[in-house]
Amino acid sequence: MRIGLDVMGGDFAPDAIIEGAYDSLQHLPADDNLVLIGDKDAIYRKLEAMKVDPSLFEVVHTSEVIEMGDHPAKAFSQKKDSSIAVGYGMLKNNTLDGFCSAGNTGAMLVGASYTVNVIPGVLRPALAVVLPCIDNRQSVILDVGLNPDCKPDVLLQYGILGTIFAKYVLEDENPTVGLLNIGEEETKGTSAVKMAYEFMKGHPGLNFVGNIEGNSLFRESMPDVVVCDGFAGNVILKLGESFHHMFKQRGLKDSYFDSLDFENIGGTPIVGINANVVIGHGISKRKAVMNMIIRTREVAHANLAQKIKEAI
Amino acid sequence: MRIGLDVMGGDFAPDAIIEGAYDSLQHLPADDNLVLIGDKDAIYRKLEAMKVDPSLFEVVHTSEVIEMGDHPAKAFSQKKDSSIAVGYGMLKNNTLDGFCSAGNTGAMLVGASYTVNVIPGVLRPALAVVLPCIDNRQSVILDVGLNPDCKPDVLLQYGILGTIFAKYVLEDENPTVGLLNIGEEETKGTSAVKMAYEFMKGHPGLNFVGNIEGNSLFRESMPDVVVCDGFAGNVILKLGESFHHMFKQRGLKDSYFDSLDFENIGGTPIVGINANVVIGHGISKRKAVMNMIIRTREVAHANLAQKIKEAI
Repeated sequence: MRIGLDVMGGDFAPDAIIEGAYDSLQHLPADDNLVLIGDKDAIYRKLEAMKVDPSLFEVVHTSEVIEMGDHPAKAFSQKKDSSIAVGYGMLKNNTLDGFCSAGNTGAMLVGASYTVNVIPGVLRPALAVVLPCIDNRQSVILDVGLNPDCKPDVLLQYGILGTIFAKYVLEDENPTVGLLNIGEEETKGTSAVKMAYEFMKGHPGLNFVGNIEGNSLFRESMPDVVVCDGFAGNVILKLGESFHHMFKQRGLKDSYFDSLDFENIGGTPIVGINANVVIGHGISKRKAVMNMIIRTREVAHANLAQKIKEAI
Repeated sequence: MRIGLDVMGGDFAPDAIIEGAYDSLQHLPADDNLVLIGDKDAIYRKLEAMKVDPSLFEVVHTSEVIEMGDHPAKAFSQKKDSSIAVGYGMLKNNTLDGFCSAGNTGAMLVGASYTVNVIPGVLRPALAVVLPCIDNRQSVILDVGLNPDCKPDVLLQYGILGTIFAKYVLEDENPTVGLLNIGEEETKGTSAVKMAYEFMKGHPGLNFVGNIEGNSLFRESMPDVVVCDGFAGNVILKLGESFHHMFKQRGLKDSYFDSLDFENIGGTPIVGINANVVIGHGISKRKAVMNMIIRTREVAHANLAQKIKEAI
């Protein structure tokens, strides 16, 4: 398994990225290869300062950097020797099994659409996120920001994509799927959600448990897969962050609430494209980078993209 | 000031409602009248059991009850001597300044539309909720469930209704207004939210601070008024409940997180109708009922409905 890491992307690149890469090694099987993609001088300099043997990694040198403020589409097409463009190129020619970056999110999405492409049959790719529930289960929620306006057929397909994700990445045999709504009754919600309910309730490919409300999120009653549009999903993800932040601010300690830190979340996989790609938070430091790499390895190990291709 | 209370509505009616009514008296000015609307025998029996002087209240007897499971529109039109129908009748003929109930929410909304009516010029009424922020400010968010699909002009008007609410009920002189979105840039979000941004940014009646994201909610960066559709708002409200519940479940204590209990929130005022009405949670017990009455008094004291009528 070869996992590519964009060393140049993120507010604390390249140092924090390389530190996280080093920490991730103890969580990866010995025969996996972690490929550091970025300026080789910066990489070797940092590894030397850390007194880390460079032979633990592969290094692919790139001469350009897509900055956090760059225009995504322009930067991606013009900076062909940037770490993001090179990473996607390696995905496309199958020299990587997975790729991750805490860099320019827009450029990562451009690469997803234009280099590796959407899987035929997938209506809209989604950003998924794996959240810890209070009863120690993990639950995947999608979309969390790619498609703020979702049509009913897209929501239905998110249920299917989420089921595949839960089955192969989280190893849930028969994952339950819930539709986020403002009430349990099937007559509740937006017109899109009401129709999605109709589509989902009889669908043979889904273990559909019906509508779930905001007060089920993170709790025992949270299904294994939560389907919602990218607007609500994004608000949920960021509100979780907000609560975690306030929790820390008040000087509180609790193993569950501590686990809600974005640093533990491991980034957001892009689901529905022809490659296994994970996007990290721009403010990722050492620990967040480590978890992003571990998540990418999980997604690549499950070969999520291939599983979706077979199912759709 | 005469505040009407539906004694028969809610999972713990009438006992918990009467207990909450009694507790609320110490928070109301002595010359306010609290009107208990419901079965007089049940009311006097409970007051006697509590050893409370019945002359502290007015009592308006009703012989019918709209149950929690009743069909809202049918029950409201057929049970003319129910506490909800009588309460709305008193609002309509101006013998009450405000009315609240923890009973059948649907029936409360039917009464709002059909008895007291929407204020002319208001596109869609909203359910508002006042949330405590971590820096001890209060912020009003609307809509939290009445209109899951919101058009841009409705969102703009929610900004105006929210401003009036914050100004007169929360006594903020020049309340800031934010539009909930999935990014700060004005190009983000659903098509409705993008257009609402355009409407709001130049509007002279709004102190508009732009888009806010989920991670600003409840925090220092939360504006005084948060505008969103009823879908996102409902998820936020219930997710707050979820966090509060988990917080308790983990045995944690903190004055701020404790304050997020729905029992402290005081119900959700209906904004945009020709009367001051507050809807409580069906599971309200003594404390929640007390706070619902206090909130109703605040809204009635500000005469929110009249202020909106003058402004729209």
